[in-house]
Amino acid sequence: MLRLSGERFTVTYRISADSEAEARLRARDICYEQTVELPEDLPIRSDIRSEIVGRIESLRSVGPAAFEAVISYAVETVGSELTQLLNVVFGNISLKPGLRVEALAFPEGFLRHFRGPRFGRTGLREILHVWDRPLLCTALKPMGLSAQEMAELAYEMARAGVDLIKDDHGIADPPFCPFRERVPLCVEAVERANRETGRRAIYMPNVTAPADQVFERAEYARRAGAGGLLVSPGLTGLDTLRALADEDRLSLPLMAHPAFLGGFLTESESGMAHGVLLGQLMRLAGADATIFPNYGGRFAFSREACQAIAEATARPMGLLRPIFPVPAGGMTLDRVPEMVAAYGAEAIFLIGGALLRQRHRLAEAIQDLHRAMSATLGR
Amino acid sequence: MLRLSGERFTVTYRISADSEAEARLRARDICYEQTVELPEDLPIRSDIRSEIVGRIESLRSVGPAAFEAVISYAVETVGSELTQLLNVVFGNISLKPGLRVEALAFPEGFLRHFRGPRFGRTGLREILHVWDRPLLCTALKPMGLSAQEMAELAYEMARAGVDLIKDDHGIADPPFCPFRERVPLCVEAVERANRETGRRAIYMPNVTAPADQVFERAEYARRAGAGGLLVSPGLTGLDTLRALADEDRLSLPLMAHPAFLGGFLTESESGMAHGVLLGQLMRLAGADATIFPNYGGRFAFSREACQAIAEATARPMGLLRPIFPVPAGGMTLDRVPEMVAAYGAEAIFLIGGALLRQRHRLAEAIQDLHRAMSATLGR
Repeated sequence: MLRLSGERFTVTYRISADSEAEARLRARDICYEQTVELPEDLPIRSDIRSEIVGRIESLRSVGPAAFEAVISYAVETVGSELTQLLNVVFGNISLKPGLRVEALAFPEGFLRHFRGPRFGRTGLREILHVWDRPLLCTALKPMGLSAQEMAELAYEMARAGVDLIKDDHGIADPPFCPFRERVPLCVEAVERANRETGRRAIYMPNVTAPADQVFERAEYARRAGAGGLLVSPGLTGLDTLRALADEDRLSLPLMAHPAFLGGFLTESESGMAHGVLLGQLMRLAGADATIFPNYGGRFAFSREACQAIAEATARPMGLLRPIFPVPAGGMTLDRVPEMVAAYGAEAIFLIGGALLRQRHRLAEAIQDLHRAMSATLGR
Repeated sequence: MLRLSGERFTVTYRISADSEAEARLRARDICYEQTVELPEDLPIRSDIRSEIVGRIESLRSVGPAAFEAVISYAVETVGSELTQLLNVVFGNISLKPGLRVEALAFPEGFLRHFRGPRFGRTGLREILHVWDRPLLCTALKPMGLSAQEMAELAYEMARAGVDLIKDDHGIADPPFCPFRERVPLCVEAVERANRETGRRAIYMPNVTAPADQVFERAEYARRAGAGGLLVSPGLTGLDTLRALADEDRLSLPLMAHPAFLGGFLTESESGMAHGVLLGQLMRLAGADATIFPNYGGRFAFSREACQAIAEATARPMGLLRPIFPVPAGGMTLDRVPEMVAAYGAEAIFLIGGALLRQRHRLAEAIQDLHRAMSATLGR
């Protein structure tokens, strides 16, 4: 006989179906598929059926051929494992069409299993000593630069006033720019700029790496003096982000990049809502900042999707700290009012190509941005 | 100045576009987005432009509003890292709609970075001492059983003639069936059955786990006498599978489960071809067997998708061993001829619910299956 706590978390699924009867069948299928993974007509123990099988809490029509089901699962189906959480929420049914995860809601007790972001917005601001304005981030690129050239660019960016200087997510450990050569050079370059400016910019190297090397690289970066780390959880697994955040000896701010997560984010009838995957789950896993392609840029995220991510970074969620949304791409002077209106001051704006385009006048370009942001914020 | 080998691998992308001109623009966008991640009009060093930026090798129309581009990348953009391979192939552009990875082709030198499957088809057959027929696999479930109940079921399945007995992928380390309690009990149960039958069935526990516990559990399972391991790379990250396969001290056959990979597999215009993700990449990462939902079952994979996976398990690929396709679900007596026709003898058939339904006559049910398979194979 199972002895469970009775505590349950809920997942809201969008279900494509032609009728409410079909939607209910599909919702029941989710309840079984995600837990006991057996056909409903097979005899199973009554306590398993009542406690382990998912439970439809509500079902309603939300549009033509679209329904929304709230399904609850016992917290014990997940325990305290992020890998298993992803599995119960969307493991097998990710393979079925027309099902989409729209929202997650967890009881407090469940959230206590997760430490979440170690720094969050306040912690990152404390490190940077910047309190009253949006933060600026840039990516060191293009792939093909040598470690020396990356460091030179890092120096220029820090000198000109960028707060967070990260590796491009596409630069891991290539032979022409090895991680162990690049990291100390870029750290030194940013520190040199900081000595000259009196600011506290940080360099965040990319530790997206083979499973057995992520921690080695993170530890190497910490010892070299890196101020934070970049990781792509779509490539390493989301729980690698969680493990980096939980590691006391590391204790560095983490920025998450959405590479290779697009499979879940492009279709409106399947996958996961942007706010859930890039907002809620990144925060649960411990990211202090979550990068996403800004609307109106070269990716196809809608303004609503971006706002949902930003909203999820700060929505009350147990004791988990609010984190920074990091809209990426497309920030130019003329878009400042719109972007500041959309994200406010509690954001990190990631500007890559647009800054490289002004490399000959970086400091002025950044001052222009700061002035435009202040004006828009009414300061 | 970059000094690269000149060796390149190719990715075939399906591109949604209304005209060849638009398709070419999108293909060029891929070339830049996946490497230097800069707008094409920004000045970059000529050697980076010629060597690092992806190169369109061909572009052709493949249907209404559909084109196929073959794009090559320098092997140095990836080095020997699977995480970085996924990133260059589909990292950022996974976030753009209407782009799909259809095929990967690697030069021999590149493949030598990857050990791949340690056992493969032949190695797994050597362990099981079964040479001349398809293998049978089952999953221990439902979630909610105690460790003792799982072991009892494992015994019955091994006793009745199942070759590979794996945990259900949904059972990781729940409080009601802890990993460290379950594994020794199930190992002992299968060994007891083997002593009675003279066969060599193996138990494969699920080591899908938090990033910092996968190896601990795998090592625990090895010491407890497990005959193989189950892992869901969609949950742990694909490279965790690679790291498990590469670990000499472990040296256990690995079965990969597709949980949480559906985001890439449900849409025909985006994501990755089934054969690439569940065939080629699982094999490159070192799976000895790759599970996928069989066509005609409760998932929506097409027969063509399933055949593409099966084909990719054995297609020549450097020195990488052929692995087993593991079609899952829906195998009943009346489907044996069709499934054996589709997959032949070099397959593992995974039967879960259909066997549990016959738990009162397991041995007979399995004998029936073997007879039907032999008859279909003409033996």
